[in-house]
Amino acid sequence: MDPINLAEKFAQIPEQWAPKIVARVDDYDVKIVKLEGTFVWHKHDDEDELFFVVEGALSIEMHDGTVELNAGEMFVVPRGVEHRPVARAECKVMLFERGGVINTGDAPESPMTRAAEEI
Amino acid sequence: MDPINLAEKFAQIPEQWAPKIVARVDDYDVKIVKLEGTFVWHKHDDEDELFFVVEGALSIEMHDGTVELNAGEMFVVPRGVEHRPVARAECKVMLFERGGVINTGDAPESPMTRAAEEI
Repeated sequence: MDPINLAEKFAQIPEQWAPKIVARVDDYDVKIVKLEGTFVWHKHDDEDELFFVVEGALSIEMHDGTVELNAGEMFVVPRGVEHRPVARAECKVMLFERGGVINTGDAPESPMTRAAEEI
Repeated sequence: MDPINLAEKFAQIPEQWAPKIVARVDDYDVKIVKLEGTFVWHKHDDEDELFFVVEGALSIEMHDGTVELNAGEMFVVPRGVEHRPVARAECKVMLFERGGVINTGDAPESPMTRAAEEI
């Protein structure tokens, strides 16, 4: 019966690029992640992925163009669309996506590949 | 390729208690709604429902207790749990739930019952 406070949850995450699950809705996850720098190009063949910027600014590069998001803005990367998140400074992001989605999608497993844990 | 700006979307909604769809993730909807006053008791038998407070404060009354949410806080009402949202002053809320969920759930259809439209 406790509220989930985003600021408190972000304060518990020391690392960047390490998504954490803060809530579940049916079999979908609400995740939060701190981003800074350039991620890997990847796609999720079967899942749309929503990025909502809580603090900072995020660029989502796609082959057809780049979406620039500021705090209070969101974008849904459609399934199958290759994308690369880039943040010039640390950015706090909330994600909505089907449970079990791996952050690096179809890209080869790398040190960036992280299973999301609950926080 | 345009960002979805929550403040701009809220500015397009004149009415309270009228949920609008701002994004879709697979077959799930991201909705926004302005709330003020007391809603009807209801439940959604088959769907969890996430409430995220963007601005203002929201109480979610349930028979086992009340969750008080402020801006930046969220709560997932589990499927089957009767609840009643109450806002003392206008509150801006983002919802995440399966597409097609009706706001008044299993309660008798009333003037509060609204199908969500895209905005």
